[in-house]
Parts: sequence; C-alpha cells; structure tokens
Amino acid sequence: MTATLVERVLAGDQGGIARLLTRIERRAPGVAEEIAALHEHTGTAHVVGITGPPGSGKSTLVSALAVEYRRQGRSVGILAVDPSSAYSGGAILGDRIRMNELSGDPDVYIRSLATRGALGGLSRAVVDGLSVLDAAGKDVILLETVGVGQVEVDIMGVAHSTVVVSIPGAGDAIQAIKAGLLEVADVHVVNKADSPGADRTVSELRDMLRLSRRKAFQWNVPVQKTSATRQEGVVELIAELDKHLGWMREHGVLDEHVHRLSATRVRWAAEETALRDLRPGVPEFDAAVDEVAQRRTDPLTAARTLLGHHEATTPDPATNPKEG
Amino acid sequence: MTATLVERVLAGDQGGIARLLTRIERRAPGVAEEIAALHEHTGTAHVVGITGPPGSGKSTLVSALAVEYRRQGRSVGILAVDPSSAYSGGAILGDRIRMNELSGDPDVYIRSLATRGALGGLSRAVVDGLSVLDAAGKDVILLETVGVGQVEVDIMGVAHSTVVVSIPGAGDAIQAIKAGLLEVADVHVVNKADSPGADRTVSELRDMLRLSRRKAFQWNVPVQKTSATRQEGVVELIAELDKHLGWMREHGVLDEHVHRLSATRVRWAAEETALRDLRPGVPEFDAAVDEVAQRRTDPLTAARTLLGHHEATTPDPATNPKEG
Repeated sequence: MTATLVERVLAGDQGGIARLLTRIERRAPGVAEEIAALHEHTGTAHVVGITGPPGSGKSTLVSALAVEYRRQGRSVGILAVDPSSAYSGGAILGDRIRMNELSGDPDVYIRSLATRGALGGLSRAVVDGLSVLDAAGKDVILLETVGVGQVEVDIMGVAHSTVVVSIPGAGDAIQAIKAGLLEVADVHVVNKADSPGADRTVSELRDMLRLSRRKAFQWNVPVQKTSATRQEGVVELIAELDKHLGWMREHGVLDEHVHRLSATRVRWAAEETALRDLRPGVPEFDAAVDEVAQRRTDPLTAARTLLGHHEATTPDPATNPKEG
Repeated sequence: MTATLVERVLAGDQGGIARLLTRIERRAPGVAEEIAALHEHTGTAHVVGITGPPGSGKSTLVSALAVEYRRQGRSVGILAVDPSSAYSGGAILGDRIRMNELSGDPDVYIRSLATRGALGGLSRAVVDGLSVLDAAGKDVILLETVGVGQVEVDIMGVAHSTVVVSIPGAGDAIQAIKAGLLEVADVHVVNKADSPGADRTVSELRDMLRLSRRKAFQWNVPVQKTSATRQEGVVELIAELDKHLGWMREHGVLDEHVHRLSATRVRWAAEETALRDLRPGVPEFDAAVDEVAQRRTDPLTAARTLLGHHEATTPDPATNPKEG
C-alpha cells in the first residue's frame, strides 16, 4: 500500500513536505482536508520569525541559526516569504552562504513560499505551511520575510518569537521603526556587529525600547549583537529565543497565541467552506450574479439566498406556527 | 419625518455621502444593508482610475479633470486611496492646486478613503464607496491611488477606464511597467508635457504598447500629453476616456466588467454573512476555537459544524432514509 501524502508528511519525508507545500501555494482541491488531518499532530514547533530591512543579512542569519540549532540536535524548517513577488522555488535562497553545510541534512527543510494573486492568500499559505513543518516534526521553524511592510508585519503575527534584524549605522534602526517593526520585536538583533557603530545602534535601540515600554508586566526585549557570517552571537541569540518561549509558556501568552491563531484558522476554513460553490461556472451563482448585474436584486440579498437556499426552499409548517 | 441616510445619499446630499463613507471605512454595523439598498440606483457613473508613480502629478491631473468635467456640466466624485497608510480625511488632498475652483460646488464631492487593518478591506471599501457616489448621481467618479504596487493594480480593476500617468524622463515609463501598470492602462498620460523629453517618453510608451499588443481585437491604447497645471490636453484626455467607455459598451466589455464586479460583491456579501457570528465573544465560536486550540478537533471540522449546526442538530428521518 502506498503511503498517503499526509502519512508521508507525518513521517517527515522531504518529498511529501515539498509536494504538500506546492499544493498549498496553488490552493489545490483537497488541501484543506489534508491540513485538517495534520492538525492534531501540530503544536510542538517553536516558530521564530525573522524580519528587517533589505541588506541587514537576514538570510545569512537564518542560515547561521539553522547551523547552530542543528549542532544542538534540533531539527529545522525554513520558510522564506516574499510578499512583493511570486518567484520560483530556489531564487531567494541563492545568496545563502552556509547552504552546503545544511543541504543533504534530512533534518533541515528549506523552502521559499509564494502565492499568485491575493495578498490575503499569502498569510494563509504561511499558516498552513507552518502546520506542515510542525506536523512533520521540525523542532524549530524559521520564518523569514523579505522587505518591510504591512504584509510582513501581518506574517510575523503568526510567529511565537519575532527577531527584528538591524545593522550598524544611523538610520537603519529608524527604518525598522518606521515600518512598525519596533513593536513586533521580541528580540532585536544588531547583525554585522563587527562593523563600526554596532554599539551605538545597540544603545539607540535600547533607548527606544525604554521609551516605548508601557506595560509593567511584560517581556523585557533584549538586544543581541551577531555576526552571522562569522557565526558569532548565534548561541546567545538562540538562548534568548528559548528564554522567550519559556516566558510565553509561563505567562499564558503562548496559550493566547494558540487561541488567536486557532480562531483565524476556523474563520478561514468557514470562509472557504461557505464560498466553495459561490464561483463562476456554478449555475446558481451565475444566475444570482446576473440578477445583481441587471440590478433586479442586490448583492446582499443574492448572497443570503445562495447561502440559505436549502432551508428557504422547504419551509416546515411545524416550526413556523405563524404560517398556519 | 427625518430622511434616512440612504435617502440623503440618493438625494446627493454631501453630508449624507460623507457619513456613509465614514461608516464604510469603519465597517459599521448595518452598512452592508445600506449599500444593498443603494444598489438598484447605481450603474450610471463612469469610473475613471488614475494611477502612476509618485511625483507624476496625479493629484493635479485629477483636479484638472474635475474642473473640465464640471465645465462640461458633468457632476464629479473623487475618491483618493492610499493603501500604504491610514491617514485622516484631508491630508492627501492638501497639495491640490485647483481646490478653490472646485470647493463649494455641490456637484463635486472629494474624499480620501482609508481603512485600518486588513488590506483586503480597502478594495472592498473602494467598491462600496463607488456605489455611494454612483447612487448619489455623480456622472464621473475619479479614483486616484497613491503609489504603485499590487494593491493599486487590484484597486484599478474596479475602474471602467484606467489612466496611467507618466512624466518625461528616462526611467519613469520603465517604473510604471515594472509595477505592472502597462497592462492595466486604457489611456496613457504623459503629464508635465511642457518639460524636456516629453515626446521621447510618448514614443517609448508607444513602442512598448506596440510590443505588448497581442490580441487582434482590442482597444487601441492612446498616449495623451497633458500639462495639468496649465489645464492643457485635458479636454482631449476626457474625449479619449469617453471614447473608451463607448468602446466598452459597444463590444460587451462593460457588461463583462459589471458581471465581474457583481460576482465580487456577491462573494463579499456571502463572506460577511457567513462569518457574522464567527467571532470572539460568540459562545459557540469561542467553544469551537477552544477545541481547535486543544487539538481535540481541527479547524475545518469546527468550521463546518459552526456553519451547518442548525441542520445537524435536528436530522429529519423523512429525508434521511438511510437512518431508518
């Protein structure tokens, strides 16, 4: 008997993971059921988001983190997301320097994720992609976004711990703050810390964190220097990330996060279920759209009729005493 | 008796239009019903989208178009949309030069549109905003977007005729093309045509249009020079836009457009209807999310139960012979 795709993913099979991620990107028929089947096997991975302005060395840092996690015996999944373009699988990964060290390791899975069309579809693909890598048994999932913008901030919302990467030099910290990244950071990294001005950037970030901190009871956001190309500061960064996950677990923040993401998943699934037959080519839908286009009915009335038409067509006198 | 908000909008009352647009931005309860009530009164406005890179003088061109449309006795609505930031009402309109000429005219309505939160919410607010101005009796609606990106391209999809504005100088035409704007243009405008290099930019655009044209039967995209600050080329631009609308009507393209937008409206209304009670605070939803968070059920099963739970709770033996 051949293993199903879900079984292959649960066994950690790289080909199975790749195939399901491609199906997620394309939103292939049946993919919702596959993700649903994985759900009970999720919940063990630590999802670490990595974001920051272009040129801050995010990809190199992601590679350095993966190398160190592997040294510690933890399995790693990497999802790289570029909301600004639909690129093919390997493009974004080309500039990684430590790929040789990682490639061929069955406990590392690296993948770029792209979706054509709607922006909202990308957040959803990311959330489903995390389910796949989580269910496949990855201990850590590194979620890297390219660029800084609202979409990136939204995507970071699905990570347990968010790393915002800056580089030494006036203005770069400001850039991250302008993009709304100061608030999303659980750990700040000043990468390329061997460059001049690193300590100054660290101080600037600490000053701004002090000013922005309002709640008395809150995670104390650390600022960590790294030199990803030299593999420096990476052990310390992982220690901070582990500490953050522990803090989340201890203070109920992890539970809140899981609930919030569960609510999103339920709403997305409901949306997909409700709209499944509301598409061009389905006769009832096409007829309703025609009525709306001719202005013989309005979109809301048409939608309510389409959603409820099973009940509406066969009214039951027993439950409708007013009709008698 | 006080007039309802819908009645005020239908009467073209500026205060009523403003209030309903604010309700759309906030997605206030009951707004879906108000837009639905307007639907049968829509379908007369010509929706003209105006987009292009920053600095191309879009806002000035929009003002110049409004002035000329008014001279021709046509009423005008202007919706300015900035997907990159949620700004307050008047901010984006500050740099318009001909506002004095337009302000106080009851047949001109000018408004910036912003939505906090989801990017998808902006497209929807724009579509609903167009319904408001259309039902209020505006002959022409100018839909201006700030910046160039996927969101702007999406928003332009709701316009009947899309104007892409370039300015003289190598590189600007290229910028518009990179942003995917060559394909969406029904009319190209080279604004600031009194600057050096305007004719060259016109030639470049014409060359690129020739290369990109594939279908034998298609609208022939014109390239129009304007100097919006001098009100030059604007009469000719409006003539091109009128010609484009006539072409759309003649070749069934307008009908296609109305059908496509109707389908979108029906799907959005269905989504809103289906998800209305699937939100935190509703006990059934909270309980389902809790089950999903605990991994006792999966999101898809939870969603199906929530959507169909009226049918599922009272199975009717008469329609379920297998149960007997």
